[in-house]
This record gives sequence, C-alpha cells and structure tokens, in this order.
Amino acid sequence: MAKTSVALVGATGETGHFIIDALLESDAFNTHGLQEITAIAQPSSATNQKYTNLRSRGVKVVPVDFTGSEDALVEALTNIDVVISTVSVASFKDQIPLAKAAKKAGVKRFVPSEFAMVIPPKGVHDLQDMKTDVLNEIKRLHLPWTVINVGWWYAGFLPRLASGRTDYIRPAALFPEQNFVPGDGEAVCSMIDSRDVGRYVARIIQDPRTLNKQVLASNFAPKLNELYSLMEEISGEKIERTYLSAKAIEGQIQQSREKIAAGQTDYMTQVGLMMSQYQYSAGIRQDNTPEYAEYLGYLLTTDLYPDFKQMTYRDFFQEVLDGKARAAYSE
Amino acid sequence: MAKTSVALVGATGETGHFIIDALLESDAFNTHGLQEITAIAQPSSATNQKYTNLRSRGVKVVPVDFTGSEDALVEALTNIDVVISTVSVASFKDQIPLAKAAKKAGVKRFVPSEFAMVIPPKGVHDLQDMKTDVLNEIKRLHLPWTVINVGWWYAGFLPRLASGRTDYIRPAALFPEQNFVPGDGEAVCSMIDSRDVGRYVARIIQDPRTLNKQVLASNFAPKLNELYSLMEEISGEKIERTYLSAKAIEGQIQQSREKIAAGQTDYMTQVGLMMSQYQYSAGIRQDNTPEYAEYLGYLLTTDLYPDFKQMTYRDFFQEVLDGKARAAYSE
Repeated sequence: MAKTSVALVGATGETGHFIIDALLESDAFNTHGLQEITAIAQPSSATNQKYTNLRSRGVKVVPVDFTGSEDALVEALTNIDVVISTVSVASFKDQIPLAKAAKKAGVKRFVPSEFAMVIPPKGVHDLQDMKTDVLNEIKRLHLPWTVINVGWWYAGFLPRLASGRTDYIRPAALFPEQNFVPGDGEAVCSMIDSRDVGRYVARIIQDPRTLNKQVLASNFAPKLNELYSLMEEISGEKIERTYLSAKAIEGQIQQSREKIAAGQTDYMTQVGLMMSQYQYSAGIRQDNTPEYAEYLGYLLTTDLYPDFKQMTYRDFFQEVLDGKARAAYSE
Repeated sequence: MAKTSVALVGATGETGHFIIDALLESDAFNTHGLQEITAIAQPSSATNQKYTNLRSRGVKVVPVDFTGSEDALVEALTNIDVVISTVSVASFKDQIPLAKAAKKAGVKRFVPSEFAMVIPPKGVHDLQDMKTDVLNEIKRLHLPWTVINVGWWYAGFLPRLASGRTDYIRPAALFPEQNFVPGDGEAVCSMIDSRDVGRYVARIIQDPRTLNKQVLASNFAPKLNELYSLMEEISGEKIERTYLSAKAIEGQIQQSREKIAAGQTDYMTQVGLMMSQYQYSAGIRQDNTPEYAEYLGYLLTTDLYPDFKQMTYRDFFQEVLDGKARAAYSE
C-alpha cells in the first residue's frame, strides 16, 4: 500500500511533537529513511536543535517562509497528501496562505490547528472564534479538511496536593495555587492524554469517514467532581477545591478584557483570559461534552475506533505521583 | 399520531407563503381548525389583508413584537415543535432574540431564514455572511436547528424572449434587459420551483435525519448552458445570451460596494450587489452544486427522498409560456 505523505507545520511545538511521535510509530507513515514525514519550518528555525533532532529521527525538514512567496509554499507542499498545522495562536492567520498553497498543490486533506476542547464556533472563546475564521476560509477554498478536537488535556488538569507531589509538573506560570473547579463541578468534560492526541491523529488522517468533518478524539468524559474523587482515591490525599461561580469567571474574563484594552497585553494576561474562557465553556456552559460535540456535527472516536486503548487518567496520574511525568510545554 | 405544531415567522412573505401552502396541504400539520399552524406576526401587520387571508385558511395568527419583551415571545412559542423563519434581510438580526425565546420555550427545531443557494459560510456573499452569524448564534444557544437551502429559484431564472412572452413575469425592477450568463455557462446550478420549496420543507421538518444539519432541497442541477438549450427547445426561440466574465462581475460588485459606501443605499443598489454576488458564487465559483453542498456537510434531498416528484423546469417554463405563471414577489 502506498504510504501517506504528511507535512507538519509546527512540528516542534507542544501538540506537534506528540503527533510526530505517533506518526513515526505508525507503519502507515514511517518508511524508515524514505522521509514520508515532512516538517515545514520557518527558515530562521530550521537549523535549531529541535529540528536537528527531528532530522536524526528520519523527518525531512523543509525550510520555507509561510508568510513569503506562495510559489515556494506550493512547491514545498507538492506531493503531500495531508498537511497538519499545529501552529500557536500567534500564527493562526498564517494558516490562510498555507491553505491557499495547499489547495494549489493538490493536498488531499488539511488539518488546521485546533486540538483543544469542543467550543461553539463563535462568541464563547476568542481562540475558537479565530479557528472558525480559518475553517471558513478553508471552506471558501473548497480544500478538503478535518478538524480534530480532543477535550481537556490530562496534563492541564493536575491538582495541587498537600504533599506537594504534583508541584514538579505544575509550573507556577501555568497553574494557580488553588484547585479551582468551574461551576458546581457537575459538568461533563471530555479529556485525553497528550500522547494519545498523536495516536488518534494518525488514525483520523487515514480515515475517509473523517474527511470534511470535525472529530472529537477522546473516550473519557467524567464529571469534574468524579475526576476529583478519582484523584483523591489514587493519591490517597484529600484535595481542597475552590468552586468558581459563573459570575466569578465572568468577572475574571471582564477584568482580563479591560487589562488588554488598556494595553496590558503581556503573555500572562492573555493566558489568564484564555484559561477563564476555557473554564467558562467547559464548566459553566458545559460545551466540552460528547453530546454537544455531536450536536455541532462532530464524529466521535468512541464510535469510529471502539478498539482504541486510550491511556487512562488513572495511569497518567499514577505516573505523575511516581515522579515520572513530563511537564507540559517542556522539552 | 400527534401532529407537529409549527410556527412561521414571515408567513406572508415570498418564501413563507409557499411553506404555508404546503403545510396546509399536508396531513401532518393540517388538523382542519385545530390550528396546528401558527403565524407569528408583528402587531402592526397582524390585521392586514394577508394575515386575514391566513386566518380564513385555518392558520392561527399570533401578534407579538419580535424586538419587544422576551416573555411574550416565549409565551407565543410555548408548545410549538418547529419554528420556521422566512424573514427578509432587514430582519435577519431579529432572529437572534427569536432563537433565544425558542430555546427558552423548548422548541424542538428552529429553521432560520436561508432558502437560497449553496454558498460558503463566509467571504462570498454578504447575505450568507449574515445567515452564518445567525446559525453560529443558534449553535451557541444549543438550540436544535435545520438549515434548508434550495438552489436558484426557477422564477428567478427567466430569459427574455424576442417574442416578449416572458415579459409579464419579468418585472423591470428585478430582471435586466439582457440574458446574462455568468462565466462560460458551464457551471452546474441546483434549481427548484418555488412551490416545491414548501413541499420539501414539510418533509424535512418531520425528518429526524435532518436535525442539526444543512439540507439542499433540489433534484435538478443542469449546467447553465444546458438550461438555455432547454429553454430554446421548449420555446422554439433562439435566446440571445450575454456572457459575463469573472472580471466583469467583480467590477459590478466593486461598483455596488463603492455606491453603498458613498451613501447610495437604495433598494436597487442593494439588490444589484446581491444579484452580482449570486452570479459570482453560482456562475464563477460554482458553489451552488450538489457536490460542493456535500463538501460543506449538507444532506441532499436526492438521497433523503428519492421518491419526491419535483416540478420540472420544462413544466414550469411551459406554464410561463402559456401565460399562467405567477410573478415572483407578487400576490
């Protein structure tokens, strides 16, 4: 069978590297030196250590400026079957010239950067609003696509324990002191281990059923309170929780917006707004559920791949308690 | 079997009245006096002749201000299964409070005002951009919905004949002197008779498969040149055509935009822009096809209802030539 040729844009980022790992694991993509996996890199980054590491693992690194000449982009994407973008918010708009070049190059499937929770297309989360704009442009181009969302990443849902056993992977910049629970904790919340993001992607991009569709890749959707009970059971520690009302989160969102409007556009303020909006969507509105995903037209991996063995939260959390977990956004 | 209760908003308009006709024809809705069909009317219009006529046909007319109190709207929509909106562009935004009230009232399906061609969600046609905003708001509300598009209405595709036999239903305000064909005339274009719009709607709103889906209701999709050949065959007249290039239509759109930006916002300028954008979408981009509809996630009535007998363009055009057709936007 012919191998599927894949190009990643954002291969060295947090999402991209899990996808690369899974593609290299899979016989459908890994041809051991034939370089069916391409990483498209900005020329200024193409020689850094992360891309050097990818090269040593058999990935073809192609330096090309996404914001530069369309011809160079089209050339880089020629003979590529699937383009996967995992660029971060600062580059969301650069996906539009990328999609135009993909259309010209005859790419058979374009996967824009989503890989987050199920959120309505507009009016709930600023990041989703931008993602929807990109998807609408893809549709205007009549370019085949697949959107993959995955729920809340396990590694983003780590409680602070009295014993301090989780502190080594809860960097202060990303996690608050307290264990905040949005709403009354009764919201159902789809979740996933980051390594499974890549393994689901490897299946989804080979599957004709997922063409021009949104997919929710997750088979674990506990209520938040149930998840805390599970954490307590596994750790043997009582976990203090601070419940946040809808009004409190609305206040945080409002406050962040005012800061940004007043010119305070630093990274932490932006992340604060983003996190508050995720809490509101998942915990208050209860958007991040299989049921709401189906309402929005998503296919569910629980239907598509009933045999898929997703890493359990129990195994993930035990790994954390054993001191063996990798912190998110680290090397 | 319990009857499905339906409320129309815009029942006396061009689209609404065809839907009312079809609902009254159908046993699923017409309970002969039990008033399962409701027309929601602005209080200022509720006593006009058109609504009086609806009352005499067994339709319950409920006067309520869409832009007024939410409680009154919720009350009007309580016990309604399906809300169908056929409001015109000036009232597109009023569908948002209507949808909110429908959500509160427990409406089981909301059909927003679309009923036109298949067009990408954003960036091709100003009307579609607005319709997409409404649909996104419906999705944010988690309100069950169905979008129904139908292609180009037969009555909007009437050639001028040298004999003048079509002039009686080609009002100068809506039809140009010349027979313009966008592009090279090789675009496939989904089409429908206005009476079938209502008959398709009556089926679609009872069908669980169409819930939270877009549907293309049309079983006739000729190339524009084929359609002109058919018109010539039926009429026995040679039909002069003026082909419009992409560049020419882009120029018309640009010109209309400049007029509107300069404050010339009269009806004809607006309609001119709208028509140029339809020509561009259908004739140049070739969006109004079953294939592009499927790409966008539409279900096709050709798959859903293979038994549906759509009125043929031949029968419609013969009716026109026989002097028996009704002009669009007339009583």
